[in-house]
Amino acid sequence: MYSWEQNIRKVIPYTPGEQPKEKDIIKLNTNENPYPPAPGVAKAIKEFDTNSLRKYPDPLIGKLVHSIAVNYGMRDEEVFVGVGSDDVLATAFLTCFNSDKPIIFPDITYSFYDVWAKLFNIPFETKALDENFKIVTEDYLCDNGGVIFPNPNAPTGELMELDEVERIIAANRDVVVIVDEAYIDFGGTSAKSLIKKYDNLLVVQTYSKSRSLAGMRIGFMLGNEKLVKYINDVKYSYNSYTLSNLTIEAGVASMEDTAYFEECVKKVIDVREWTKVELKKRGFIFGDSKSNFIFAKSDRMSGNKLFEELKKRKIYVRHFSKPERIDDYLRISIGTAEEMKIFMEKLDEILGL
Amino acid sequence: MYSWEQNIRKVIPYTPGEQPKEKDIIKLNTNENPYPPAPGVAKAIKEFDTNSLRKYPDPLIGKLVHSIAVNYGMRDEEVFVGVGSDDVLATAFLTCFNSDKPIIFPDITYSFYDVWAKLFNIPFETKALDENFKIVTEDYLCDNGGVIFPNPNAPTGELMELDEVERIIAANRDVVVIVDEAYIDFGGTSAKSLIKKYDNLLVVQTYSKSRSLAGMRIGFMLGNEKLVKYINDVKYSYNSYTLSNLTIEAGVASMEDTAYFEECVKKVIDVREWTKVELKKRGFIFGDSKSNFIFAKSDRMSGNKLFEELKKRKIYVRHFSKPERIDDYLRISIGTAEEMKIFMEKLDEILGL
Repeated sequence: MYSWEQNIRKVIPYTPGEQPKEKDIIKLNTNENPYPPAPGVAKAIKEFDTNSLRKYPDPLIGKLVHSIAVNYGMRDEEVFVGVGSDDVLATAFLTCFNSDKPIIFPDITYSFYDVWAKLFNIPFETKALDENFKIVTEDYLCDNGGVIFPNPNAPTGELMELDEVERIIAANRDVVVIVDEAYIDFGGTSAKSLIKKYDNLLVVQTYSKSRSLAGMRIGFMLGNEKLVKYINDVKYSYNSYTLSNLTIEAGVASMEDTAYFEECVKKVIDVREWTKVELKKRGFIFGDSKSNFIFAKSDRMSGNKLFEELKKRKIYVRHFSKPERIDDYLRISIGTAEEMKIFMEKLDEILGL
Repeated sequence: MYSWEQNIRKVIPYTPGEQPKEKDIIKLNTNENPYPPAPGVAKAIKEFDTNSLRKYPDPLIGKLVHSIAVNYGMRDEEVFVGVGSDDVLATAFLTCFNSDKPIIFPDITYSFYDVWAKLFNIPFETKALDENFKIVTEDYLCDNGGVIFPNPNAPTGELMELDEVERIIAANRDVVVIVDEAYIDFGGTSAKSLIKKYDNLLVVQTYSKSRSLAGMRIGFMLGNEKLVKYINDVKYSYNSYTLSNLTIEAGVASMEDTAYFEECVKKVIDVREWTKVELKKRGFIFGDSKSNFIFAKSDRMSGNKLFEELKKRKIYVRHFSKPERIDDYLRISIGTAEEMKIFMEKLDEILGL
């Protein structure tokens, strides 16, 4: 051990899903969109004046902030943009969760929440999902230092109805409530309509799933102007220039093509519903996912075994070995119709159906 | 005041130099490179397969890490890459500066250091520069919680010789010493050769100045493998995917074109030396900058007045009103030969020469 190690912050980092380098795989492990980004994105990148990269980008990310604001019926001052929703959420944790009381979130949820809490020394408590993997609203009406949950939840895909979301926000007016809507476009109703009513609400969304731009790193947050200002102050205290002008142009091009966005989302939903029917036929157990993935377990093979068998056949899904309660489940991202057909064929082969 | 505000982290953010939207200005205020990025960067961006943006980028940033390692004679495990050197430095602060003892840095230096310290609740103390704006090595040989300084220093441009840098590193083996070399390519000797000898050393560099890619947001750090691992753990606990594959390709293309890099750096140095001669003729007072800017004061007009007069004539330089000791100085980035000629003409007009 080196003598400087005593002052080092030691953390156990989040492990993202694999990004295999092989070309001929079916990748259903990181909830990416199977369709390419809007055609305008390619155009924006090809036509970008690369000589302008010698200069710093717009620190206000103004053009993209405005584009998002217009699209969601907000004012520019109510929009915050970051390097993917992970950057947005981490910045919000650092800014908003400074109480001595624990923040609360579900026990089975996005695995980054406890990582951020540990990184920033934020006390936290988890609340167990019910036997159907549903969030129990009543658990979130207690005294706490802040609330965060995804809607739909990950990795379960379970949606909470908007009136239940509102109950949680209304019961927690003295802390910030973050609704992480990474998957909301695939079948839920966003809580953004509640921002006018609740100044303690932050709604986080991302370009990574419904907008097919996981690789571009754009996430955003909608909320009360004053709250957004505080979060921007922390952002500007960390890094003035987070998004390149190239990323900003790509983000604007994507946001402007609503028809393409809706078409891709509809295709994902259609394939998801087909996948549910096919999984049911094969004896799988799963809830009514409203996201771009299905969290399912086989009635005849362990999660780990099935994960490994699929991998041998070049199909990557996500398996969480902890907690034990979910270790027989696989999180299966929705690919193209063709990919899901091959997935079913491989399942039949593995399960001997 | 809203009731949730009691738990908010409130900070006074860093104010970056202006990025004016006007087109016909001469911009000498943010130390950008006046020459475009290497030709290979434009090619990499034009040829990039934008459909691949639907997928997450390589979380290891492997291709760029390797390219930097090869270029600087390091192993991949000794290289950390982030969203500009601000992201690299902020992550290093969060990871390495966790002592109860104050970290130390110069009183006149990069204005982000105290902002990060305040953001992360890191105690700090500043050490005064001497009457020639030089860092006093002896001040950094005391008991402390960590050391950081830029070399050359900003906004002074003053270079510390490598043997002095080594004295500071050697005297602080039980804490991490960060040498921030944003401007080192313009005339200094990097401390990277000392990494094999000192496991407590981190050397930070950036693509923003000498590589003409401020807009792309790439910074990097070289250091002991174990130290780099700790910093990567914190990075992966904050955001798994920080650089897009598009940024990675651009970064590799830039790193591979050493001839273009050296040519641009030489041009900046030549114009800087010409600028020194011309400023001296006009009665300016300044040190022997080894960076891509000159920190100078006029013998006949206040810093603020000169800043405003230049701005009226569409020339932007940087003026720091605090501390008082430097409020008559302007930080003038080195533009093209043509831009600096116009700058001199405007100075003559303003100063009545």
